Amino acid sequence: MATTGQVITCKAAVAWEANKPLVIEDVQVAPPQVGEVRIKILFTALCHTDAYTWSGKDPEGLFPCILGHEAAGIVESVGEGVTEVQPGDHVIPCYQAECRECKFCRSGKTNLCGKVRAATGVGVMMSDRKSRFSINGTPIYHFMGTSTFSQYTVVHDVSVAKIDPVAPLEKVCLLGCGVPTGLGAVWNTAKVESGSIVAVFGLGTVGLAVAEGAKSAGASRIIGVDIDSKKFDVAKNFGVTEFVNPKDHEKPIQQVLVDLTDGGVDYSFECIGNVSVMRAALECCHKGWGTSVIVGVAASGQEISTRPFQLVTGRVWKGTAFGGFKSRSQVPWLVEKYMKKEIKVDEYITHNLTLGEINEAFDLMHEGGCLRCVLAMHV
Amino acid sequence: MATTGQVITCKAAVAWEANKPLVIEDVQVAPPQVGEVRIKILFTALCHTDAYTWSGKDPEGLFPCILGHEAAGIVESVGEGVTEVQPGDHVIPCYQAECRECKFCRSGKTNLCGKVRAATGVGVMMSDRKSRFSINGTPIYHFMGTSTFSQYTVVHDVSVAKIDPVAPLEKVCLLGCGVPTGLGAVWNTAKVESGSIVAVFGLGTVGLAVAEGAKSAGASRIIGVDIDSKKFDVAKNFGVTEFVNPKDHEKPIQQVLVDLTDGGVDYSFECIGNVSVMRAALECCHKGWGTSVIVGVAASGQEISTRPFQLVTGRVWKGTAFGGFKSRSQVPWLVEKYMKKEIKVDEYITHNLTLGEINEAFDLMHEGGCLRCVLAMHV
Ligand SMILES: NC(=O)c1ccc[n+]([C@@H]2O[C@H](COP(=O)([O-])OP(=O)(O)OC[C@H]3O[C@@H](n4cnc5c(N)ncnc54)[C@H](O)[C@@H]3O)[C@@H](O)[C@H]2O)c1
Ligand SMILES: NC(=O)c1ccc[n+]([C@@H]2O[C@H](COP(=O)([O-])OP(=O)(O)OC[C@H]3O[C@@H](n4cnc5c(N)ncnc54)[C@H](O)[C@@H]3O)[C@@H](O)[C@H]2O)c1
Ligand SMILES: [Zn+2]
Ligand SMILES: [Zn+2]
Ligand SMILES: [Zn+2]
Ligand SMILES: [Zn+2]
Repeated sequence: MATTGQVITCKAAVAWEANKPLVIEDVQVAPPQVGEVRIKILFTALCHTDAYTWSGKDPEGLFPCILGHEAAGIVESVGEGVTEVQPGDHVIPCYQAECRECKFCRSGKTNLCGKVRAATGVGVMMSDRKSRFSINGTPIYHFMGTSTFSQYTVVHDVSVAKIDPVAPLEKVCLLGCGVPTGLGAVWNTAKVESGSIVAVFGLGTVGLAVAEGAKSAGASRIIGVDIDSKKFDVAKNFGVTEFVNPKDHEKPIQQVLVDLTDGGVDYSFECIGNVSVMRAALECCHKGWGTSVIVGVAASGQEISTRPFQLVTGRVWKGTAFGGFKSRSQVPWLVEKYMKKEIKVDEYITHNLTLGEINEAFDLMHEGGCLRCVLAMHV
Repeated sequence: MATTGQVITCKAAVAWEANKPLVIEDVQVAPPQVGEVRIKILFTALCHTDAYTWSGKDPEGLFPCILGHEAAGIVESVGEGVTEVQPGDHVIPCYQAECRECKFCRSGKTNLCGKVRAATGVGVMMSDRKSRFSINGTPIYHFMGTSTFSQYTVVHDVSVAKIDPVAPLEKVCLLGCGVPTGLGAVWNTAKVESGSIVAVFGLGTVGLAVAEGAKSAGASRIIGVDIDSKKFDVAKNFGVTEFVNPKDHEKPIQQVLVDLTDGGVDYSFECIGNVSVMRAALECCHKGWGTSVIVGVAASGQEISTRPFQLVTGRVWKGTAFGGFKSRSQVPWLVEKYMKKEIKVDEYITHNLTLGEINEAFDLMHEGGCLRCVLAMHV
């Protein structure tokens, strides 16, 4: 391409400081270095982790930065040594890398690759510990190794999943975070069996994907718990069979669920990020085998607690990141499943806006009616 | 037998009140009713759960009662409908019942049978919700469905494991609690694989049995952690390969272990009952897969805490009761393993006393040099 090896100047939404509106700026995006890939981002969705870091509550948040991590695009150019993708490939950037070489990747027990974390955790690239983004010479930090709120971004090659070029990028961008997180929490982390009783706390995108995953795993009852009763109607389409609004009950919600299920649920999932709900999600599990998976991300410094007796009597407390999916290996497989209509994606998209409307998109996120808002990046 | 159907008057150690010395009394033991078994207890060991309830700290403790739950004996007589044991059978009373019929037993997921819990939890027998122990008409409560600090006791048939009559009862009594708990925590609850790095917090009987179980599972490193350095010498014989005394370090013990193991252990076991150590045991686990099992029993009302990030990044928090062993099915199998010298038992017995010396035996428990003290009941 004409741009190969050149700095690209393009539009990006820059978070200059915590909690101040994002500003659409002309950003210089340097060419990819050794082991790096420059991607033209076509569509990006917004996720709560973006909002969390932007809010300033994330102690590891660095400013100025370019947020965004749920997106899809096309490879523009690749740096030296990159063999698995080439310009023109359709890709999903993955905040959870997969190098297939590190202790984590080789363990066969986790998707938490450690290869580039030391760099992505502090907003830079591995090779030279520098950012590829700048505005008139001022470096702008990367975010989660993805920074998809830019028309072009640079990521490590271990953070790129090559997907079927036929897949609609304006839809499958969602397979970069929320939907796989929910499905994988059920399939990979909890391994829900057919006939199980499942409780899902929080019916946002992640919770609905949990419900969808549980339905496909053959769960016999899927109890959705949300303080916003408006969520209930939509949730039925994702497999939720019963609804509980904690506000309708005087008893602690764990007790309500234990009573509803003759002793507790087989699996529960916390998809909110609230530490009290995490406790309730554990304690509503059945004695002897109930397993609770923490999916929501709590604010920094907050802690979960329970009586150890809950665990001694057989409950299991787990968590999941990106649903336990190995990103480069399994995101393409999820895209295939979507193409075969085995998993939903379109149904999570409630709003479509453009990069220029990103601040409105963040406002929408706090409204009950919004699941995912997808931004078109080049209009 | 001559005593069948008769009240037996025998010696038992009675806990009249919390924290007051046990008193050896002449106790009347009623004949077994429907589904009950009367056992002549020959040997009993002491365990911390006895001491805990006796101390008055157990809010569910009932007085007066007859404590004791780690023992072996011979069936004296059986009540109506009892088919699986008969007078003369050698048995180990099991505080964790196994009915093979209830929701728990049928689940295939847990050993926590629910059949007689409603009665054993409140110190009585199921059939008439009464005690079989009395002193001149004053009922004395049962304890844990076993009450082995009596020369004769009555238990539910679902709480009796029939064992090889050749096994020495003065040894295999230990297979009623502590040793199976440690072995099973490794084999059944954690399912430690060959090559794993294991940390054991607390090197009493339970912790040493964890070490032994880990060694037999092929663990590559077994790190023993105890604040009493005298424990270290003995621990080597049970498979502990390295020792850490938290008192020798300024850093939090979880950090010491993470540093020692290049990122954390694969499995950890808390065998103390201290909620801060439970947290440390979780947090010393390796990101991505480390699993921590709570074995120790904390005092009532105490809570465990951690940052949810510990779980979201792949650690798993579990617990175990009686090591996950199905009591009636698997205690006989453990006895066989002992007879084939595949598991240790003798090595945990540091003291031998008699029923009359039971208060001294409790004093010994708080000394570093004591693992298990076995009482001969009929001398
Ligand atoms: N572990 C991971 O890898 C991962 C990945 C993506 C997102 N997340 C996290 O998952 C969580 C959910 O994400 P989302 O996009 O679905 O969020 P969302 O805001 O769309 O959904 C949250 C839902 O929880 C409900 N809720 C809030 N408080 C509640 C309470 N006390 N009881 C019951 N319901 C309550 C809200 O009404 C809402 O419907 C967030 O914390 C996000 O950061 C984690
Ligand atoms: N879950 C179950 O089914 C089950 C069954 C039996 C026993 N238990 C429990 O297991 C625990 C251990 O039993 P045991 O008989 O081995 O007890 P024990 O008292 O013989 O051993 C405890 C060990 O922990 C050490 N210790 C104390 N505080 C420590 C600290 N802060 N850091 C490191 N080490 C410390 C002591 O020095 C001692 O060596 C008890 O809580 C008991 O109630 C549980
Ligand atoms: Zn996300
Ligand atoms: Zn890796
Ligand atoms: Zn015990
Ligand atoms: Zn049962």
